[in-house]
Amino acid sequence: MIEDKNISKTNLKDLGEFKLIEKLTENFKNINSSTEKGIGDDAAVLSFTKKKVVISTDLLVEGVHFNLAYTPLKHLGYKAIMVNLSDINAMNAIATQVTVSIAVSNRFTLESLEELYSGIRLATKAYKVDLIGGDTTSSTSGLTISVTAIGEVDEKDIVYRNGAKVNDLMVVTGDLGSAYMGLKVLERENEVFKVNPNSQPELDQYTYLVERQLKPESRKDIIKLLKDLDVKPTSMIDVSDGLSSEIIHICKQSNVGCDLYEEKIPIDPQLISTCEEFNIDSTTIALNGGEDYELLFTISQNDYSKIKANPNFTVIGHISDKNSVPSLITRSNSKIPLIAQGWNSIS
Amino acid sequence: MIEDKNISKTNLKDLGEFKLIEKLTENFKNINSSTEKGIGDDAAVLSFTKKKVVISTDLLVEGVHFNLAYTPLKHLGYKAIMVNLSDINAMNAIATQVTVSIAVSNRFTLESLEELYSGIRLATKAYKVDLIGGDTTSSTSGLTISVTAIGEVDEKDIVYRNGAKVNDLMVVTGDLGSAYMGLKVLERENEVFKVNPNSQPELDQYTYLVERQLKPESRKDIIKLLKDLDVKPTSMIDVSDGLSSEIIHICKQSNVGCDLYEEKIPIDPQLISTCEEFNIDSTTIALNGGEDYELLFTISQNDYSKIKANPNFTVIGHISDKNSVPSLITRSNSKIPLIAQGWNSIS
Repeated sequence: MIEDKNISKTNLKDLGEFKLIEKLTENFKNINSSTEKGIGDDAAVLSFTKKKVVISTDLLVEGVHFNLAYTPLKHLGYKAIMVNLSDINAMNAIATQVTVSIAVSNRFTLESLEELYSGIRLATKAYKVDLIGGDTTSSTSGLTISVTAIGEVDEKDIVYRNGAKVNDLMVVTGDLGSAYMGLKVLERENEVFKVNPNSQPELDQYTYLVERQLKPESRKDIIKLLKDLDVKPTSMIDVSDGLSSEIIHICKQSNVGCDLYEEKIPIDPQLISTCEEFNIDSTTIALNGGEDYELLFTISQNDYSKIKANPNFTVIGHISDKNSVPSLITRSNSKIPLIAQGWNSIS
Repeated sequence: MIEDKNISKTNLKDLGEFKLIEKLTENFKNINSSTEKGIGDDAAVLSFTKKKVVISTDLLVEGVHFNLAYTPLKHLGYKAIMVNLSDINAMNAIATQVTVSIAVSNRFTLESLEELYSGIRLATKAYKVDLIGGDTTSSTSGLTISVTAIGEVDEKDIVYRNGAKVNDLMVVTGDLGSAYMGLKVLERENEVFKVNPNSQPELDQYTYLVERQLKPESRKDIIKLLKDLDVKPTSMIDVSDGLSSEIIHICKQSNVGCDLYEEKIPIDPQLISTCEEFNIDSTTIALNGGEDYELLFTISQNDYSKIKANPNFTVIGHISDKNSVPSLITRSNSKIPLIAQGWNSIS
């Protein structure tokens, strides 16, 4: 897909690093008042006089985190930003800036990197964050993307992972497991394509799953909604490695246990039908499939009335005391300990 | 060197990501008051109520930026931090935090990564910066290190690249070209070793050059010294790509020209003798060799008396008006335009 031998494409070597950076970043405009100086000096200059600054960083590696055979570069750029904004949101903060560094092998052209940056631009515009810096270098193999996201939050609003209290309710946004099954569907189609390069992918009945995999959204909307509802979670984390793993993080850091109810875990009908087709248990996928980028948080029971009518939220369990381990209460009412399998090790 | 097949070494796969991060970061202690929360949540939380925040990021790729055949991992860790602190210093700022992300192939062991992190720790301790986050992932080939550095500075002290004025003096710290010749020496020894693996490297007469290559220091001391001397540069940049390239950046962004005097460029005697041995012109190396991590800045002539007696500084030229191009005045008094060759393209 991207090993383009079309001679009208621009070789990166002919361009040089400075021209490449200029080209890739020319359409980015800064919009946040906290951005005093963006790209173009030794460092960016930011101003956060009243707010606290939150910072998170992620590395995406070709062949480990993405496969360009079925990931359009524009989507990859968008997703690379979302993955990081999601961590900022998980602090109850709003992202304001990102830096983006890339290492690329010589099989990439200027045009392919412009595709990648068009996705980055789409994400920065949609989420009102400024691209303020980065690094562009060659690699000996493949594409690596490193994003650092910076956000701001009032001190009183910061939510850590370690504040869950006994009897708090455990709440999750959206639905879980779909991004992982989207990946499974794409991987299967890719195998079919490798055997028969003339085959066309059949994705119509998996559109939701595939979109969840290829174009995740960070839940900035939830941060605003929680503020509007006057709810401050007692703890929060984003669901990137799988629900099970994230619950264990919260419980471990808060020094508590929890009961999670299988029947409460929100899953999409498309996930159910696709899991049946793949002969996989949908609860296993919802628990351990990663890359949902939903928010998992705990709230005081006193706040329950504020969120109960809202379709964005599902109460999936409650916090128990520290002598009990994080557990799943199954549909058949048996109680089994949660295991942090992590999404990389499912298949 | 690092392809260690000793079975007492710990395979990364057996460890898992969370345990690995725990192991690598267990000896880091936060010391800056601006670090409110470091490693361990979705994002770090920082506090800069009175100062401006400066941010810079760099990506180091095995086979492009370093060769592990002659780069000890501890030195590499140290250097990865210095490269980024240097950008912060170039804003006239002091670094306060770093994030470090690594992508590693399975040929690395826990012990080799602990070596890398011992160098990172040495650097963070020596320069009083806190390691506040990062990402650890696998790669399909080699080692990639991504560092983001965060620093602070009073608004009135920020120095950009674009403030050089006509008649300002151009000043550089330390000496130039040595890091590049250190690399040439190491590469030559590595070639000898490949032919005869029993040979011992002969580096005694190149110790300064090799140290400049393997263990560069960012010039935090200069930022303090300039403050003590009550000198605020009109423009500043760090010398990472070569003097020539940096001068052109300053001139272009400040919309001025400059005259650089060949005879004034500070070079070490070891560089001269080694250039003679390699039959290379030492001025070419000083102009285009990279990785010096010295500071290049311009000052008003009124400030000359404050810096003239200080051995850290060398006045190498002056800013001319925008109708003249950045030029080198050679020892034979001819004037030739500077070219931004960049250190990657010298050899």
